[in-house]
Amino acid sequence: MKTSLGPKTLASPAPVWVVCAYDAAGRATGATIAWGDICCSNPPSLAISLQPPRHTYGLIKAAKAFTVNIPAQSQASLADYFGIVSGRDVDKFAAANLTAVKSGLVNAPYIEEFPLAFECALTHTLDLGTHTLFVGEIKDVKADPAILDPAGKIDIQKLGAVMFSPATRQYYGLGPLLGAGFSIGAAWKK
Amino acid sequence: MKTSLGPKTLASPAPVWVVCAYDAAGRATGATIAWGDICCSNPPSLAISLQPPRHTYGLIKAAKAFTVNIPAQSQASLADYFGIVSGRDVDKFAAANLTAVKSGLVNAPYIEEFPLAFECALTHTLDLGTHTLFVGEIKDVKADPAILDPAGKIDIQKLGAVMFSPATRQYYGLGPLLGAGFSIGAAWKK
Repeated sequence: MKTSLGPKTLASPAPVWVVCAYDAAGRATGATIAWGDICCSNPPSLAISLQPPRHTYGLIKAAKAFTVNIPAQSQASLADYFGIVSGRDVDKFAAANLTAVKSGLVNAPYIEEFPLAFECALTHTLDLGTHTLFVGEIKDVKADPAILDPAGKIDIQKLGAVMFSPATRQYYGLGPLLGAGFSIGAAWKK
Repeated sequence: MKTSLGPKTLASPAPVWVVCAYDAAGRATGATIAWGDICCSNPPSLAISLQPPRHTYGLIKAAKAFTVNIPAQSQASLADYFGIVSGRDVDKFAAANLTAVKSGLVNAPYIEEFPLAFECALTHTLDLGTHTLFVGEIKDVKADPAILDPAGKIDIQKLGAVMFSPATRQYYGLGPLLGAGFSIGAAWKK
């Protein structure tokens, strides 16, 4: 018998992604989000949700482009920093000693020092209430060669993970391997 | 200098959620998804993406309701099972020895044995390509008392996590605490 907790946004795991865009002066900035996911396989697309007061919100609408940058576990504090100050007030890249690289595919910058970046063109905007959901078509994925295996694929153990727990407002890393997808459930087939 | 991997849906962490609905005969079924997230704080909402051929897709459209069920780490194989067979062919609840509880708030069932369930009313549908994004307003969260702390809040260590790595198609659990959100980044403030 379950207990009612009320209508709350307590679902986990949530990702910790830094969404980057250019301002009108061509300066790179970014915002950390935990409301985001892959939302379509083809065209390959990501969804991110942002609140209108956030500086990056208007920049994405104007440029119709953004990048999603995935931090290494060792970069959790940098990701947190991008979520607690505003790009209206400070140059976050300068303060955090990070390098903004201009995407050759979309009008947005990505973070050179983060291991994984998604270059996205805005395709859909959906106003939901406090947040607006932006869908971006992934034009390319840029990876640090250090997180790739010899076959050139992402090694999840090298990438790690920074995930957010909405219930406790804490960040957690990658845990133990539980099994292979599309495989371990076969035991329940009659 | 980063390497290009092409336009792929490799972002992580992705959740492992079992989305449940009733069929026309009132029988409970469900589908496992990894494309999903919280997408709005108020009204509290979740987004899930499903492909039209999946049995649960049409059931959600018809009932305008669904639940999101979060498995414990020990239930990863059950979640995987719900993703590898179709509710058109088998009664997944019966095969997996799980109990469908009728929500008192929306026309959808939740899984009694999973530690956390979100009862959602469909509010938006967005066709994106291979997948359709469904937004559901969270009407209530139902939790197993065993995952709550003495104050009645979710203890993330007790809940654990099952997260999907799209890069390797594997499931991973909850890892080490990396720090407190809205806190550890303050060190970068000048």
